[in-house]
Amino acid sequence: MSINEKYKQIKDIGEFAFINRFESKFDQMIKDSDMGIGDDCAVVSINETQNHVITTDLLIEDIHFLKTEISPFELGYKSLAVNLSDIAAMGAKPLYSFLSIGIPTSTDIDYLDRFMEGYHKLSQKYNVPLMGGDTTKSPDKIVINVAVIGISEKENTHLRSMACSGDLVCVTDNLGDSAAGLNILLNKIEQTSVHKKLIKQHHLPEPNILEGMWLAKHKQVHAMMDISDGISSDLKHILKASQKSADIHLDKLPISNELNSIAKKENWNAQEIAASGGEDYKLLFTVDAEGFDKLNADFEKEFNKPLYLIGEINEGRSEISWFKNKQKLAISKMGFDHFS
Amino acid sequence: MSINEKYKQIKDIGEFAFINRFESKFDQMIKDSDMGIGDDCAVVSINETQNHVITTDLLIEDIHFLKTEISPFELGYKSLAVNLSDIAAMGAKPLYSFLSIGIPTSTDIDYLDRFMEGYHKLSQKYNVPLMGGDTTKSPDKIVINVAVIGISEKENTHLRSMACSGDLVCVTDNLGDSAAGLNILLNKIEQTSVHKKLIKQHHLPEPNILEGMWLAKHKQVHAMMDISDGISSDLKHILKASQKSADIHLDKLPISNELNSIAKKENWNAQEIAASGGEDYKLLFTVDAEGFDKLNADFEKEFNKPLYLIGEINEGRSEISWFKNKQKLAISKMGFDHFS
Repeated sequence: MSINEKYKQIKDIGEFAFINRFESKFDQMIKDSDMGIGDDCAVVSINETQNHVITTDLLIEDIHFLKTEISPFELGYKSLAVNLSDIAAMGAKPLYSFLSIGIPTSTDIDYLDRFMEGYHKLSQKYNVPLMGGDTTKSPDKIVINVAVIGISEKENTHLRSMACSGDLVCVTDNLGDSAAGLNILLNKIEQTSVHKKLIKQHHLPEPNILEGMWLAKHKQVHAMMDISDGISSDLKHILKASQKSADIHLDKLPISNELNSIAKKENWNAQEIAASGGEDYKLLFTVDAEGFDKLNADFEKEFNKPLYLIGEINEGRSEISWFKNKQKLAISKMGFDHFS
Repeated sequence: MSINEKYKQIKDIGEFAFINRFESKFDQMIKDSDMGIGDDCAVVSINETQNHVITTDLLIEDIHFLKTEISPFELGYKSLAVNLSDIAAMGAKPLYSFLSIGIPTSTDIDYLDRFMEGYHKLSQKYNVPLMGGDTTKSPDKIVINVAVIGISEKENTHLRSMACSGDLVCVTDNLGDSAAGLNILLNKIEQTSVHKKLIKQHHLPEPNILEGMWLAKHKQVHAMMDISDGISSDLKHILKASQKSADIHLDKLPISNELNSIAKKENWNAQEIAASGGEDYKLLFTVDAEGFDKLNADFEKEFNKPLYLIGEINEGRSEISWFKNKQKLAISKMGFDHFS
């Protein structure tokens, strides 16, 4: 090990390179029927036909949320929502949650009661009881870790690695609203009711649990994941795991009237926000091209909203080619910078 | 709600009163075959004969550990060990772990590599693969949340609520070494090899996984839990859950030669440290009086060490009566202050 290597810090190499340093040592211990690091959830076999899927997310004050911007009710709701979204990505039914919370000693009980009310509201909606956790002191920041266990049928498992050449790339809902909401908050833009709708998407995201379970049952659906970092970043995980490339059409990204209206007013590029904005918590999936029309018609019958077709999967090496009005765009391989 | 009530802070009511405020709302959602908040682990039925047991623990720098005192290898090892100890308390076999870690951006990669080496060392010992987690930035403190899933036979489940009148109270190993080790560190006492042995108990606690699985198979064993806050505090959880009282004999608490020797030198009360010191991560359990001799003989044959009998369970309301040389001591109901 060189001296330079020795003094490297985590900021120099990032999250994924750090995980790469230890992942294989643990993978050796994992049974063939199970799956560890690398998808939205870990997958463990519980009987011949079913898996448990498990996810966990850590949220730290001033990194993932600002106490001044999000209400305690919303924070409790969102802490569970981001985990339920990972369960949705596996097409699984959420069963149980576990909450660890680090609390500065001066935190008001009233604040904590409202946090738990938000957490309970979403727990109740999907009948996912809080089964345990840990409550402890924190020096100054609120620290929240939620873990959720779900159950899925083995035959309905849709991994990031399952995309095929010729598949269509789809999403379940509008993109970019959450990122626009965050941008409104960070830039302290005066809020009309339209702005507030976007902020609501940021603070109270609705995990696509029912959509995920429904899609998972359909054999036309191949790879599936949830959109947490924006499709420009998340789709690359599918492409890498499946060893494929994709063409994505910016002009086909579903964008809400609210985002279009505020983007026009604030001179934002709504398509870029939809492509690169994080925390949408909708589903991104690939589907056999021949099966799409039937899937879309059945989905619309079930959920009273359509699926959105945004591109195609091709042979190639983990890259996204971006198109606008059928013209290929010269965008760097690194993806967009947020709001650049 | 009065104004006084409204402005109460978490420090005024503490962890358990906070949990009481929301526990029942979630309990209503839990299936009869499952068990939520209130034991070392949550218990969920996976088939007719087996349960999954799940535990999670949150460790925050400067609250649970000082970066200057514990090496990264030890911190990684201990982060998993404290969770495996909860699995041991259920008599379960650990299956999988999940690690969420919040890391200040200036943290050395070398520090993190050594943290993961410690975590891996214990994972390998009990063949518990790390299956997933979350890696994220933290503003300034290291934040670690570990969750572990284990498996147990339904017929071998030993809850805190299973203590019976007439049971003997036992522990699986020496008490107080970890607390003495912490005291040596906090008081910056010069370290001989004897001091270092106590510090090792604090930094590299050995979860009693094999002992827990073995004890769980024996019908003489009734209630069981792990010792994380000291028996003066932990035993009360068994007494409360079982609606019983206990007599505990200070002079029967197993104390290591190392603790006796340092206590003499530093003028500490070794028995009080053994009764009230935290983080031993040994097992505390109650056993049918008639079955004890056979259990103890078999345990010694299996593990080459004895069980330690420290008291008895009686009818009564969740109180511990302390004895020394058969004389009842006049100690307040609140238990000991650590090192008072």
